[in-house]
Amino acid sequence: MNERRLKFWGWGWEGESATDAEVDHLKRTYGAALKVGSFPDIPPPAEDEFKLPIPRLSPPDSLAAICSGDPYTRLAHCMGKSLPDAVRMFNRQAPHVPDIVAFPESEEQVSALMDWAGDEGAALIPFGGGSSVVGGVEPIVDDAYKGTITLSTVRMTGVVEVDKTSRAACIRGGTRVPDLEAALKPHGLTLRHFPQSFPMATVGGMIATRSGGHFAMLYTHIDDLVESTRTVTPAGIMESRRLPGSGAGPSPDRFIIGSEGSVGIITETWLRLQDRPVYRANAAAWFDDFYKAAEAVRAIAQSGLNPANCRLVDAAECQINGVSDGSCHLLILGFESAHADVSTAMARVKELVADHGGDIGDGGNAKDAVDRWRMAFIRMPYFREIITPWAILNDTFETSITWDRLPDFHRKVMDATRTAIKDATGQDGIVTCRFTHVYPDGPAPYFSLHCKADQARMLDQWNIIKSAASDAVIDNGGTITHHHAVGRDHQPWYEKQRPILFGDAYRAAKQTLDPAAIMNPGVIVN
Amino acid sequence: MNERRLKFWGWGWEGESATDAEVDHLKRTYGAALKVGSFPDIPPPAEDEFKLPIPRLSPPDSLAAICSGDPYTRLAHCMGKSLPDAVRMFNRQAPHVPDIVAFPESEEQVSALMDWAGDEGAALIPFGGGSSVVGGVEPIVDDAYKGTITLSTVRMTGVVEVDKTSRAACIRGGTRVPDLEAALKPHGLTLRHFPQSFPMATVGGMIATRSGGHFAMLYTHIDDLVESTRTVTPAGIMESRRLPGSGAGPSPDRFIIGSEGSVGIITETWLRLQDRPVYRANAAAWFDDFYKAAEAVRAIAQSGLNPANCRLVDAAECQINGVSDGSCHLLILGFESAHADVSTAMARVKELVADHGGDIGDGGNAKDAVDRWRMAFIRMPYFREIITPWAILNDTFETSITWDRLPDFHRKVMDATRTAIKDATGQDGIVTCRFTHVYPDGPAPYFSLHCKADQARMLDQWNIIKSAASDAVIDNGGTITHHHAVGRDHQPWYEKQRPILFGDAYRAAKQTLDPAAIMNPGVIVN
Repeated sequence: MNERRLKFWGWGWEGESATDAEVDHLKRTYGAALKVGSFPDIPPPAEDEFKLPIPRLSPPDSLAAICSGDPYTRLAHCMGKSLPDAVRMFNRQAPHVPDIVAFPESEEQVSALMDWAGDEGAALIPFGGGSSVVGGVEPIVDDAYKGTITLSTVRMTGVVEVDKTSRAACIRGGTRVPDLEAALKPHGLTLRHFPQSFPMATVGGMIATRSGGHFAMLYTHIDDLVESTRTVTPAGIMESRRLPGSGAGPSPDRFIIGSEGSVGIITETWLRLQDRPVYRANAAAWFDDFYKAAEAVRAIAQSGLNPANCRLVDAAECQINGVSDGSCHLLILGFESAHADVSTAMARVKELVADHGGDIGDGGNAKDAVDRWRMAFIRMPYFREIITPWAILNDTFETSITWDRLPDFHRKVMDATRTAIKDATGQDGIVTCRFTHVYPDGPAPYFSLHCKADQARMLDQWNIIKSAASDAVIDNGGTITHHHAVGRDHQPWYEKQRPILFGDAYRAAKQTLDPAAIMNPGVIVN
Repeated sequence: MNERRLKFWGWGWEGESATDAEVDHLKRTYGAALKVGSFPDIPPPAEDEFKLPIPRLSPPDSLAAICSGDPYTRLAHCMGKSLPDAVRMFNRQAPHVPDIVAFPESEEQVSALMDWAGDEGAALIPFGGGSSVVGGVEPIVDDAYKGTITLSTVRMTGVVEVDKTSRAACIRGGTRVPDLEAALKPHGLTLRHFPQSFPMATVGGMIATRSGGHFAMLYTHIDDLVESTRTVTPAGIMESRRLPGSGAGPSPDRFIIGSEGSVGIITETWLRLQDRPVYRANAAAWFDDFYKAAEAVRAIAQSGLNPANCRLVDAAECQINGVSDGSCHLLILGFESAHADVSTAMARVKELVADHGGDIGDGGNAKDAVDRWRMAFIRMPYFREIITPWAILNDTFETSITWDRLPDFHRKVMDATRTAIKDATGQDGIVTCRFTHVYPDGPAPYFSLHCKADQARMLDQWNIIKSAASDAVIDNGGTITHHHAVGRDHQPWYEKQRPILFGDAYRAAKQTLDPAAIMNPGVIVN
């Protein structure tokens, strides 16, 4: 069987990349925006360009059939899809390659792998879609571990049961979002939770990392869609009861959601589903002033109307993504429903936009901008492999903040990031902001940065910028991540944000479930 | 200062009770429904009818001013407001009276009390509104403890800060709901979270017990309104960051929400608020068949319209509360908004009701029924002190269940409860059901039972019925509580429901925060 393979060195599946037209567009964009004049063509790495260390572990006979030590497989599981990951791949650097990659097909095999790792003194690194942009899947462990085993969940797939009455489904943890949607479609149902990583993302991975999805309001995080979880830990199986709501003690699901593989592998879950939308209304509005636009978003977020789409994209981000000429800020609005006309709600939102100085414009103008934005959102991850050889750093970070602090927070984070770019590279870069999700009490601002780096110093330069941006987010009251997860990259700032005693309590809880500390060391618990 | 005092033996404040008209109504109701013929008049207990044990503890000088050992205070903190609590009070039984009741005014005093309890080997029982109906505040501890200290939070009150922009407020944990609403009103804001216990309930107590509030959909539990928490634990203070949303590891707030005093005292919280509603639409519908009515509720719950009120009250519950003649089931519907007309949404919900065979009736009929239901809901807790001397058991229990299992679940729980009443009392009782909250994936059914007991055996008879009902809930897949909390009464069933490993993990976490195990022993962690 010729299985489709994920690129080991970049985003998506083998054979997928930016189109020639997109590459031309990127050249024009960065030529204009960053005065980049040369676009060196460095081919992506090949497997044989990496000299991999000999695996330090050898699986027992009972597990050999589900374990692989072949170079492609080890390389494909040695890091995620972050900017430094791409830089290192183009540098032909893979400093932390798992000794073994295991593909269990059952919970029994997951348990057996945990037992083996415990016996060997090896670390076990959970791997779902592998789309981490925060170092969540890279097997970086200290010398106390005798080796690393990456546990891929992608052979534990499928929809076990669909409950149309309650609009929920029992899904195995390794199921990828497109496969899930295909399985739900005949039932007229959809999860309708589409992170940017959706081509690869797995259900278990989304729960482990508290992913953010399609809905700008209400059902923002996967958290809200989880009805129950089933997790294999080194100490055994932890399964919560399927319930629409409960008040019986602290939520066991909320303990697992966001655990990022630090206590176990989410093998099964009941998720709440949506009917496929029938009624839709979309609009876009233009604003001259970002903070006035933010005030409009606040009014909408506090109106109780809960649009499915309410995304504010600042002018610079519109421009660099080819959405507009960058003269105005764009607010994308959408309602959808399977059951009721949404035009009244959209009319009310348009009033709020107009009240706050937004220009709803004509339908065509708005529709084009929204379509262009949507396409940019989907295609963006594929551009990293194009621009990394050009020594262009394009990274993102995201957070949330209450409305009262937004203007000051936004200015300080933008300034700190711009200053760090200048400090690190000696040149001005571009920093942009959009809101990915909004709440009645505040937005989730998502920042993008673009700058020209030095080919030989890209990692160092990125580190300087990432550190400064993370400091600014934490020092000014934000969260180190709204939906990208903690991973190894955010762990130092996460520890500043997390209540110290909660960290202590979680560490004790982990000790109970993972007494040999084999599960994803360095993530959540350090 | 003549402070208003809570009744030590019943619901509400001293001087409050059922009116003569209500007592007459109760006599007629139970005379007809349970063939009760005699209504003995047992006066409520007086303080001097209890012989209290001499306090085993004596506070250090530094804490003496905030500690009380007087009989009223000890009696007022010796149990909650459940049915067995009322029975025992009328029996002049107070088997577990705290040795000392402390009223700290600051976090420093809370910490000092914890230190003292730890040094003495005493248990510390948190006490907010004291409205627990699940044994959550009764100082029942084993002989390993040298005594019991009840820590009342009601002198740590007030709104510290209002953030109108983000619609949130920082509130001290002991603030009662009516006082909170009074403080928010000048700002045009409201928490709009009104459990049945609202006259007494404190903000910290609601968070600790995951209370259920005003909204039938969306913002059902206080959980959804918590922006951050600040908790004093024996190991120190745990404070989460104020954030509209976060994806940084497992939620520290969700660890505290539902902890029921087992790890600390919630001294402060930022809560999300609502604008005061301006637009309203209310309606009521009648159904001949309960399960058809439930199907209508399901359609509404899955419509995305999210009414603020969507409460199905079965015919028997309507009848015994004087809402109607009991020939039909009542569905109460309401929309409210501060910002937009809600008539379109109500019109669509009415269509869904009609589609499912509901009779919307005329406006007057509906309004009367809704008003009567609302009054019954508010006044109900005051009736326990009237009917307990009559040896009438009227208790409630509540749960949630997914829609697919609802009909079978409902039948089995109703049957098991009816059978248990017959077994325990030798007579038929009445069991009714309403939905207090609904979710797209299932309702939260709330059961009430009414039966004639034997004066001398009321506690035993209640125990038989409560056990059978709890068994039925757990055996058939429900949660032991949707919003009444776990307390000591539900702990055995909670342990059946809770994933064993989550219990182990939570126990380890508690050990970290409360190493001397002084906090509310027997609740959540046994």
